[in-house]
Amino acid sequence: MQARLESIWDWMAQEDIAMVMFEDFEPRRDTTIRWLTGQPGDALLFLSVDRKSLLMPWDTILAKVYAKADMIVPYNDYDRSPLRAIHGAVERLNIPYGSKIEIPPTTPYPLFLNYVGELSDFDIICRENSTSEHALNLRTIKDEEEIRILRKAGSITNKIIDILEKKVRSGKIKTEADAALLIEVEARKRGCEGTGFETLAAGPDRSFGIHAFPAWTGGPFATQGLSILDFGIRYCGYNTDVTLTFVRDPSPQQQKMVSLVEGAAEVAKSSIVVGNDTLFTWLLVEEFFAKAKKKMVHGLGHGVGLDVHEYPFFRNRSKTIWDMEPGLVFAIEPGLYDSMHGGCRLENDFLVTEDGYEILTDARIIRL
Amino acid sequence: MQARLESIWDWMAQEDIAMVMFEDFEPRRDTTIRWLTGQPGDALLFLSVDRKSLLMPWDTILAKVYAKADMIVPYNDYDRSPLRAIHGAVERLNIPYGSKIEIPPTTPYPLFLNYVGELSDFDIICRENSTSEHALNLRTIKDEEEIRILRKAGSITNKIIDILEKKVRSGKIKTEADAALLIEVEARKRGCEGTGFETLAAGPDRSFGIHAFPAWTGGPFATQGLSILDFGIRYCGYNTDVTLTFVRDPSPQQQKMVSLVEGAAEVAKSSIVVGNDTLFTWLLVEEFFAKAKKKMVHGLGHGVGLDVHEYPFFRNRSKTIWDMEPGLVFAIEPGLYDSMHGGCRLENDFLVTEDGYEILTDARIIRL
Repeated sequence: MQARLESIWDWMAQEDIAMVMFEDFEPRRDTTIRWLTGQPGDALLFLSVDRKSLLMPWDTILAKVYAKADMIVPYNDYDRSPLRAIHGAVERLNIPYGSKIEIPPTTPYPLFLNYVGELSDFDIICRENSTSEHALNLRTIKDEEEIRILRKAGSITNKIIDILEKKVRSGKIKTEADAALLIEVEARKRGCEGTGFETLAAGPDRSFGIHAFPAWTGGPFATQGLSILDFGIRYCGYNTDVTLTFVRDPSPQQQKMVSLVEGAAEVAKSSIVVGNDTLFTWLLVEEFFAKAKKKMVHGLGHGVGLDVHEYPFFRNRSKTIWDMEPGLVFAIEPGLYDSMHGGCRLENDFLVTEDGYEILTDARIIRL
Repeated sequence: MQARLESIWDWMAQEDIAMVMFEDFEPRRDTTIRWLTGQPGDALLFLSVDRKSLLMPWDTILAKVYAKADMIVPYNDYDRSPLRAIHGAVERLNIPYGSKIEIPPTTPYPLFLNYVGELSDFDIICRENSTSEHALNLRTIKDEEEIRILRKAGSITNKIIDILEKKVRSGKIKTEADAALLIEVEARKRGCEGTGFETLAAGPDRSFGIHAFPAWTGGPFATQGLSILDFGIRYCGYNTDVTLTFVRDPSPQQQKMVSLVEGAAEVAKSSIVVGNDTLFTWLLVEEFFAKAKKKMVHGLGHGVGLDVHEYPFFRNRSKTIWDMEPGLVFAIEPGLYDSMHGGCRLENDFLVTEDGYEILTDARIIRL
């Protein structure tokens, strides 16, 4: 974590920022606080350009177990008010009057006005090209420790996939609930913090939805047609994200959807080479689907790490294009949906390596 | 829902706003879209002062099942860009040049600048005293339909509490996981959309945390000491929020914490009368704890409804004070935490009535 902090402090020096504030509370979450300190959430973090860190957790008892920072001060000392907290941070970190203080780029406009009003002796900045944004970009390239954790997270995910396949085939998983609960149990049994997001288990009647609503029910799963199971586990803070489709007695239209999705996954894989970029992968898949007169209605992929969805994004509308570089970790998830025939999605997580990629997860189309 | 829309349109006319935008996407959620249209999430909603509604869902197939609006247009038609979408809404709703358009008060400052730049022919407003805020205030007083749903949600919650007590007493629930999974299963079995938030199940070793991290594990539950179980179910979009504490062979210190928390809950209850307000309840409980030289480290309560945490808030630092009025629904949750002895919390949901209150849930301290 020290190296991560150093990279942020270097950036601050270069940008002439005296202090930066990170915020990780509902509804504005920022897992960069965990990346920099180990604190799993519900805290503010202040860094000063003279290389000090000040953490203000909501639950100080919990922070003492998980977090490392030069100072840990209860957020309650400032009545859990970010305006009072930033005043306190300025004092404790000896930030000189007139210097630049950066607040989170997620700060709502009305709150921004309050910060500016309250801290009139400082130069408050709030911008897209922020320190938070810089951290998110640094986080795309995972370090050794992160890769170790992600490989372990992938291997736990793969064990769960194998159990799911076995239990669907043997008839032990009959409902969406059976599938979703099995994942909860198996993940925690293997030391995970939990699932990274609410499992989406959609039997043939509901798989038309990109994100099934409700996420899972007591309804039938893996019966005739297409059933989607989208889940991920969180291990030491790091997420996997996979989607399986179970196919039983498919109609010709369903068969076509499935083979197109499998084809798209292969096309995407073939493009994961150092030197290519995320837009290239997107365009290849778009072209592949277009030949079959189909269109993706959601993004093709996204980074995975401390967030389930993080940089890079694979979308043609994305303002940003990311180069394939060793250490980049992302999920690729081609999918097709039809209100009559249901949906099919296949999602796996990849680590870009010097000579191609390592596939971290083993999700697949399971033909019953 | 028509009455809810009318109340927003009336406000818009009064405020001279030609169009208002609501946003319900990660990371900026706003369940007011569900309150106004039935759409469970992932959509933009635009209302014009001439009483038209335009919904832009991410998943159009899903929206057609759940949502009502004058127009439903795929967000994909605008490449899922809020800037393009708002341009489209201006055209479709015939918003005259120069008129006021209100964007969500959660809009980050850098994005606000983009809206202003893009829509230079309009008067863009983004403010604390917003239409969204007005809707959140209207939502504190539940209508007949909402009270019906919340009573049902409460009764499902109470059935689950009874099963939990029975199974802990009979030794069938031995771990945090046993408790958390039972809630998942029983909630869905009874037609719930799911749990409203990740269940917090913390055995005696971990109950010192206000919000246990991880939320639940395979570790022991309801063994010697204090075990906290904080959960809620979501039924037709509406949430309950309750906390039970299981007490086994308590030490004198633990006994004292438990009776203080029970006392605080009684003190709070006694204050729920039309004519009182949320600050009065907070101050009563603060005084009660102060006499025992204890202090609450979190809020005393919060509204429950489409959000697990919504207005009103019971905090002394709250800028706003809410009067106890018939139809107000909230959770009250006194708690004490100690790094040595663990934690104790008791949380129930209340509906304010003409002549006092109705208690919607039946959470309790369970002595084993």
